[in-house]
Amino acid sequence: MTLRRSNLALVLRSLRDAGPRSRARLAADLGLNKATVSSLVAELTDRGLVREGQVERGGIGRPGLTVELAGQSVCGIGAEVNVHHVATLALDLGGAVVSEHRRSLDTASLDAGVVLDHLADLVTRTADDVAAHGARPIALTVGIAGLVDAERAVLTTGPNLGWRDVPVARMLRDRLGSTDSGGYPIVIDNEANLAAIAEATPGDASRRDMLVIFGEVGVGGGIIADGHLLRGHQGYAGEFGHMIVDPTGHRCGCGRTGCWETVVGLRALLDAAADPDDPVRDPRLGLEDRLAEINRRASLGDTRTLAALERVGDWVGVGAGVLTNALNPGVIVLSGYFAEVGSWMRAAIERRLHDAVLAPHAGGTRVELSTQGFTAAVRGAATVALESVFHDPTRVERRVGSSIGGTP
Amino acid sequence: MTLRRSNLALVLRSLRDAGPRSRARLAADLGLNKATVSSLVAELTDRGLVREGQVERGGIGRPGLTVELAGQSVCGIGAEVNVHHVATLALDLGGAVVSEHRRSLDTASLDAGVVLDHLADLVTRTADDVAAHGARPIALTVGIAGLVDAERAVLTTGPNLGWRDVPVARMLRDRLGSTDSGGYPIVIDNEANLAAIAEATPGDASRRDMLVIFGEVGVGGGIIADGHLLRGHQGYAGEFGHMIVDPTGHRCGCGRTGCWETVVGLRALLDAAADPDDPVRDPRLGLEDRLAEINRRASLGDTRTLAALERVGDWVGVGAGVLTNALNPGVIVLSGYFAEVGSWMRAAIERRLHDAVLAPHAGGTRVELSTQGFTAAVRGAATVALESVFHDPTRVERRVGSSIGGTP
Repeated sequence: MTLRRSNLALVLRSLRDAGPRSRARLAADLGLNKATVSSLVAELTDRGLVREGQVERGGIGRPGLTVELAGQSVCGIGAEVNVHHVATLALDLGGAVVSEHRRSLDTASLDAGVVLDHLADLVTRTADDVAAHGARPIALTVGIAGLVDAERAVLTTGPNLGWRDVPVARMLRDRLGSTDSGGYPIVIDNEANLAAIAEATPGDASRRDMLVIFGEVGVGGGIIADGHLLRGHQGYAGEFGHMIVDPTGHRCGCGRTGCWETVVGLRALLDAAADPDDPVRDPRLGLEDRLAEINRRASLGDTRTLAALERVGDWVGVGAGVLTNALNPGVIVLSGYFAEVGSWMRAAIERRLHDAVLAPHAGGTRVELSTQGFTAAVRGAATVALESVFHDPTRVERRVGSSIGGTP
Repeated sequence: MTLRRSNLALVLRSLRDAGPRSRARLAADLGLNKATVSSLVAELTDRGLVREGQVERGGIGRPGLTVELAGQSVCGIGAEVNVHHVATLALDLGGAVVSEHRRSLDTASLDAGVVLDHLADLVTRTADDVAAHGARPIALTVGIAGLVDAERAVLTTGPNLGWRDVPVARMLRDRLGSTDSGGYPIVIDNEANLAAIAEATPGDASRRDMLVIFGEVGVGGGIIADGHLLRGHQGYAGEFGHMIVDPTGHRCGCGRTGCWETVVGLRALLDAAADPDDPVRDPRLGLEDRLAEINRRASLGDTRTLAALERVGDWVGVGAGVLTNALNPGVIVLSGYFAEVGSWMRAAIERRLHDAVLAPHAGGTRVELSTQGFTAAVRGAATVALESVFHDPTRVERRVGSSIGGTP
């Protein structure tokens, strides 16, 4: 039974990572016999997770119909609470975005209950979109800016939100009502870890050892080691923002002095780039618009803006150098606000990185900007929600009256 | 064939990690059928890797003879070149130390060829010990203080040895002669990574997420993530000693300023603890004796010695805090010279660590001293050499005329 379940998962992940194939080729690729693969495919079809596709050309043996993921059957929902917004996003099994909602919100000035009212509203809209897509939600993962006790589903400390010991999953379920959320589990996770997962495209070998640095007001990230997120002993890995890099510097939101966040977080950039009454520093305005204005000024050659970007870039490079000596990642992905304005910082980052790293040619580490914009965390959350199906396809029930080859 | 090989490896590793068991219990534990397990055990017996042990009580089905590792058949040889000594150690399949040799040597003042003459001499002695044990060497792994290009088997940079681009494996093979070393591969690796592997006892869950900080003159280490050494993109992970923690501080052997090594390496301790003409600073004397003298002075309450140890402990804690925010290890193991004098540093390290780490209660990270003394790296090297058998038992040939149940 356990073996069958893990073989079902093996077939499903193989279709995701290496694309549609005939049963014969699946059997050859997975080292299973063809009768076993046919039986596994039949069960996955019954569960609505795969379907038959086109005739395979040039395959093994006589031509057969390919098997592919039946994308539209189930969705994972991701949600996010950070300092500037709440957001949701749903991915179907094939990885297509089915729903996306975002609301700018100055969350740090609001009560946790009010913020979660807003989030519950977005989750309900997304669940409606999922239903309209003909799918059902399989799980909801909520990313939050702060330290998360995943087992108890509690945000223990969110320095930049000003939250402590908030039982996010329970509060969200209360707001969603049992009809909406009775059917699927709600888990919570650190948003920067989720942003890292969003960068780890399954099957892309060049990203198997990766460091994702995620910055908004808070700075954190994730370490992808050999293709998997490194979570550490109690799930607290990736708190890069609180590495002390400037011991004689500024006080951090966490109470310490000189944390990396104090020199590379969004506030450090904005404080250096603009006067207090400048609209780019107004937390009530949308962050994208404010960053677009920073980009506009930089492209016009504004000295103060460029100097601020270079200074932050220098400090990003210093911290990236520390982490690269320890981890030797193949790629450092800059995510969150870094991705939006990172093209102005990149030269400074790379210079510092090459100076700091002992290994020749910085150990082959490349610096890249995330292409996911502000959706990285919420997309990673939806990916994690879907992952439960790829690990155990029997979580999706068999459909009554389904037949092999049926499509949703 | 590939499946059979991986099943042979599965049985062998299971006997190592979970101890001797009957064929019936092995089959149940591994999810294989009993006939398959019997056939696998027969082949492993033919290869001299397992043998029958005692009658199992309270097992599944009728009582059967247990199967256990045949420890004495093959050995992995580990070797080490660091600033203070060259060393070798051989482990048999059961994990017993079969041979151990060490020679104090001021390697930095000698030519690489001369150092490898000494090392080749120790390897020959160890190979003789292995033969006297009735075993044969399966592989030789050489740990070196510096950056290693494992693929080309070249030490690219050894700042503290003063070596550059030394083809260690080739030079060692030349010195050993083809009769001695023709039969087994020679690979090279970073000594601090190997010291980390030595701490990762297979099957010990509490050490699945671990950080090993290894210090002598140079400082490095290894990250064990989910039970495996994190090597990074090009194998350069673990260069903790060159994280910049004190940008206004001292010049490092690598040419940078303020590397962690400059404040926690052995020289930092000795410079602070003793005048230049004090014998504890004489590199020609054995390191153990010099550290024993430091311990003696500390236990007599010598103020200068205690202050030096506390100061180094503070800096160890600062760097450990940076790494713990990033990695959230369950255990930090202090290895190398840190283990020898670490009891005097421990309070300072733990205090700094608790101050520095964002996660509550320092993320549950414990600080421990290695119990392996100066053998950590060479023991890890021997473990890696043996690992080739645990990954592919067919590397050991079938014995002519062997029979099931035979013992070497």
